[in-house]
Amino acid sequence: MEQAVRIALDVMGGDHGPAVVVPGAARALTTRPDISFVMYGDEALIRPILDQHPALAARTTLVHAPVSIAMDTKPSQALRQGRRVSSMWMALEAIKKGEADATVSAGNTGALMAMSKFCLRTMAGIDRPALAAIWPTIRGESIVLDVGASIGADATHLVDLAIMGAAMATIVFELETPTVGLLNVGTEEIKGIEEVKTAGRLLRETALPNLAYHGFVEGDDIGRGTVDVVVTEGFTGNIALKTAEGTAKQIGAYLRSAMSATLMSKIGYFFARSAFAALKEKMDPRRVNGAVFLGLDAIVIKSHGGTDAVGLAGAIEVAHDMVRQELLEKIRRSVALAQESRSLDAVDSTVPTQLVASPEALS
Amino acid sequence: MEQAVRIALDVMGGDHGPAVVVPGAARALTTRPDISFVMYGDEALIRPILDQHPALAARTTLVHAPVSIAMDTKPSQALRQGRRVSSMWMALEAIKKGEADATVSAGNTGALMAMSKFCLRTMAGIDRPALAAIWPTIRGESIVLDVGASIGADATHLVDLAIMGAAMATIVFELETPTVGLLNVGTEEIKGIEEVKTAGRLLRETALPNLAYHGFVEGDDIGRGTVDVVVTEGFTGNIALKTAEGTAKQIGAYLRSAMSATLMSKIGYFFARSAFAALKEKMDPRRVNGAVFLGLDAIVIKSHGGTDAVGLAGAIEVAHDMVRQELLEKIRRSVALAQESRSLDAVDSTVPTQLVASPEALS
Repeated sequence: MEQAVRIALDVMGGDHGPAVVVPGAARALTTRPDISFVMYGDEALIRPILDQHPALAARTTLVHAPVSIAMDTKPSQALRQGRRVSSMWMALEAIKKGEADATVSAGNTGALMAMSKFCLRTMAGIDRPALAAIWPTIRGESIVLDVGASIGADATHLVDLAIMGAAMATIVFELETPTVGLLNVGTEEIKGIEEVKTAGRLLRETALPNLAYHGFVEGDDIGRGTVDVVVTEGFTGNIALKTAEGTAKQIGAYLRSAMSATLMSKIGYFFARSAFAALKEKMDPRRVNGAVFLGLDAIVIKSHGGTDAVGLAGAIEVAHDMVRQELLEKIRRSVALAQESRSLDAVDSTVPTQLVASPEALS
Repeated sequence: MEQAVRIALDVMGGDHGPAVVVPGAARALTTRPDISFVMYGDEALIRPILDQHPALAARTTLVHAPVSIAMDTKPSQALRQGRRVSSMWMALEAIKKGEADATVSAGNTGALMAMSKFCLRTMAGIDRPALAAIWPTIRGESIVLDVGASIGADATHLVDLAIMGAAMATIVFELETPTVGLLNVGTEEIKGIEEVKTAGRLLRETALPNLAYHGFVEGDDIGRGTVDVVVTEGFTGNIALKTAEGTAKQIGAYLRSAMSATLMSKIGYFFARSAFAALKEKMDPRRVNGAVFLGLDAIVIKSHGGTDAVGLAGAIEVAHDMVRQELLEKIRRSVALAQESRSLDAVDSTVPTQLVASPEALS
């Protein structure tokens, strides 16, 4: 039989902790029976819930973690309190120790990001990790990265983001060759940042497997779903993500107030309530559950803090599929290719221009 | 009698040209009777429309412009074709020649930005112009700048943006002391860009008139209306603006498909149609008509290209109020204060630390 995919779970993470994480794991096991779990958290709280799921319990090792990181703990504080002893840290360390293939946590993003950077190494050839979000679009879903793991990016890092996002898209969206766009501003007058332009040239000139470079995209192309993967540096990506969230909330507020404004609109709402329910579901954050930390020598999935068992199972399934389909290996291969292509570039640029321009001079 | 506010109009700008711009001017004159207009454009097209508005015609000088800049002309092309001879250029040049106090154009943004930079000087003490947008929020409206006039900003430029945005807010929102926030990312782990942090310190330490510095804000604070003025550099600002537009369109598409999905939802839509109309109006770009170029030694308003006479009149009214309420003078005063404060800072930093730390050493 195929070896199990070993998933480390931070059971104390998220708004509901074990009450959601354990049933979520049980649910994931029904669609991905080849998972085995290592669960970290408060044993006294977890054991009774786990006992209600005998099939899950049979495939789970439960490890007691004395500390739980609260959802509002600041990253620096989380590191001080939780290093070595928290469920979040221990779940990450399991990868480092070779006891798990991937980690899933619904805990707070900042703390998970800080602990991941602290506990795990970045992948060979990648300078800094990135946070990739799955973004709902008119066309379906896209991956947007970096949405806030680090600030600033040179052209090489942008190319790394493109490679990592495309590799993730092949697995999450089951695409052979995902399209990739670089986020830029449209005005011809401005013509974008130098790093973005250089990254565009590198992506166009390097033949990377499983990546179709589309060119520049603008902010409104994200929601339009113009490309499968949108690449940008972490500051802009984080602001774009939060601006979109803010706009969605704002329109939701307009809509609610419009629907309760008059008797007629209330009647209308009554008749259309299933349509509104469908709309709400479409905008449901559970549907796009799980941001992914990329660039680490590990698979780390951040599940939405407020999610339920269905959402958490989705995050576990994504983690499973990334292990099974060798996300890290795919990224490694592309990164090596890109580096090779860049060093060939460097060789070219050391050859005297004269020789390159007129080879007949050699004869 | 008070001197008239002289407004130069690019009558050929916008999707509908004279058919909207002339009636828009007529409408603005009813609420701001102290305006006089200089109109630039194709005389043969404009004259018959102007003749239908005798009150307007009496306060208008019509100047023939042989070239009109199309809405899809690239900025560089617009400069080549339209320098000196286009209605857009001539309307901007009118300020330079002292023949107008402000310019309003519904023409294409990139071309207007390029021509403004080319034709007009930046204000003393301001390095680069900025594009300020009026952004609808849950609370009302906010000003967001720079949404794409230039890329990158050091701390000084961010402070300039704060000053210009606040001065605009005192006039457009009729506020004594608008609140100003610097757009940043929230994660404690990241703590934002150095320039943004320095700008925050400068704004906190400098007592600027008509500006209450709120601190950092995040992307979702824009739609929430947390502050009256949101300050960010042009690359991020442009991407935030377009991402919000994209999200609004996306939700609009979801909503339309939800409302036409079933017979019940169609009935619901019928009853709630006035609520939907109100919602649509709320999201109507005409309501937030007019971005403003700040930092030029001139008042230049960009009206929405697809607007009607009501929207265009709004843009003209904003231009009028900015002249009457001395926007440029307000900005100049604040910029001078900020510069003074910075040079005092510089004096401080040249005093040997020892002396500052222990004044008793002097005795």
